[in-house]
Amino acid sequence: MKPIEDSTLGILGLGLMGGALAMALRNRTVLGPRGRLLAHDIDPGTLEAARAEGLIDGGFPSPGEMLGRCDVVFLCLNPSTLLRFMAEHMALFRPGALITDIAGIKGNIAAAMERDLREDLDFIPGHPMAGSEKGGFAQAGSCNFQGKNYILTPLKRNKPENLEFLKDLICRMGFGRITCTTAEEHDRKIAFTSQLCHVIAAALIDCESDRAITRFGGGSFEDLTRIAMLNAPMWTELFLENRRELLDRIKQFEGSLDKLKNFIAAGAREELLETLGAVRERRAAMG
Amino acid sequence: MKPIEDSTLGILGLGLMGGALAMALRNRTVLGPRGRLLAHDIDPGTLEAARAEGLIDGGFPSPGEMLGRCDVVFLCLNPSTLLRFMAEHMALFRPGALITDIAGIKGNIAAAMERDLREDLDFIPGHPMAGSEKGGFAQAGSCNFQGKNYILTPLKRNKPENLEFLKDLICRMGFGRITCTTAEEHDRKIAFTSQLCHVIAAALIDCESDRAITRFGGGSFEDLTRIAMLNAPMWTELFLENRRELLDRIKQFEGSLDKLKNFIAAGAREELLETLGAVRERRAAMG
Repeated sequence: MKPIEDSTLGILGLGLMGGALAMALRNRTVLGPRGRLLAHDIDPGTLEAARAEGLIDGGFPSPGEMLGRCDVVFLCLNPSTLLRFMAEHMALFRPGALITDIAGIKGNIAAAMERDLREDLDFIPGHPMAGSEKGGFAQAGSCNFQGKNYILTPLKRNKPENLEFLKDLICRMGFGRITCTTAEEHDRKIAFTSQLCHVIAAALIDCESDRAITRFGGGSFEDLTRIAMLNAPMWTELFLENRRELLDRIKQFEGSLDKLKNFIAAGAREELLETLGAVRERRAAMG
Repeated sequence: MKPIEDSTLGILGLGLMGGALAMALRNRTVLGPRGRLLAHDIDPGTLEAARAEGLIDGGFPSPGEMLGRCDVVFLCLNPSTLLRFMAEHMALFRPGALITDIAGIKGNIAAAMERDLREDLDFIPGHPMAGSEKGGFAQAGSCNFQGKNYILTPLKRNKPENLEFLKDLICRMGFGRITCTTAEEHDRKIAFTSQLCHVIAAALIDCESDRAITRFGGGSFEDLTRIAMLNAPMWTELFLENRRELLDRIKQFEGSLDKLKNFIAAGAREELLETLGAVRERRAAMG
């Protein structure tokens, strides 16, 4: 493996996250004079804009041209598109390339790559925990990676030196904490911290029809519904792909909500005081 | 009524919100050389600190001494304490004083004041929509009023000139939007934008025992549970005082959550896409 600064890095898909990763790789002078940052996107206008801004060194309307040049590739695609892309374009990657992705669920991707990946390639599934409710390349600047979490779910076959290389690259982009875990654990935790939260935000908006409700907002409503501005196709896919874990989490949440509702209905002051006090302590302990 | 700049303003209770109001009244040069900002608090240390900082012109350990001097009084107490205080100390207010409060529910306070207030006094119930999950005078600086909402629920007996005076004062503190409505409407809307959101945040923490869950946080979980750091006695009181409206809102929310859960369980892709798309549009329209 070359040193990071001399590598040719490729971003496949210059949407919100692909664009944000490109900015982090470019702005932080990750690359030296011999390093290159390339991108492929189906929209020629996006490639042109990224090139005009000096964000990328080369934009390729066909994936093959880019993939043949890259030591490292970030696949910035929705999960289903990603699996289709890998099945169709596996032959185009440069021999020995390191590949990673950014998808919000990992179980199906990890299983497919463990099973089907070309022998010489190394695929390390990843999930940068730093999105934005905005979408598209034009909004890429709204993602802030500084100090954020990044999850990796390495495969048994991953080469240790590639894992170290990727971790180093992630640190250089400004992320604050890398957690390595299994795809199963990732999907279980993310069902709670991300998907359940999006379901709740959507339900909150679904049950209120007053368009002027924000006159009565004091921060809580705004905080809880920022993420209701969701990308419907992507979140539909994430909810359904992680259905089993997400349904478990919804049921657990419903249990706690029901408990609080019953305390309120019964006027159970002591039980409420105790539960809310315990919640405050537990949240504080979570840091 | 004197002009605002020549008035003597009093804050009763220098906690988080009382302290934040004092800061807004002081920093914005609301008062001229003849105006005064006074405060009462049961904690002498807080009064001393506020005086040492130059935040208040006088700190009074006994409420009577302060109330006799004030043209305008902000009652910064929990709802139940407020009603007890008014019942016990009604005689101490200066003749003709304008009184307002900051409590998060208004129905019971409005009813009590409509019924029991001394004839010469004017009580305009209010609710500054700008708290913080932090508590106490030392954290008062964490409340930001700039551009925020302020709800007033005027009583039939309120004098128009006093209402105008209070609105002017609220604007000068930096609030961005004042909404005048009934106590009933306030309590119905706040049950949704504030209390339901706090119940949801508490339920989210109640159903997760992993203290290291924040390693998997990417913003959504943090946004939805910031307010789980709640002041248990105050929120217990707010939940129970507004029980009927809050239970209605919890049930509406449960209905929407159940709908989404069933779509996910059934793999109903089209219904999910449509609902999430409508949610995004509706949230955007709420501004």
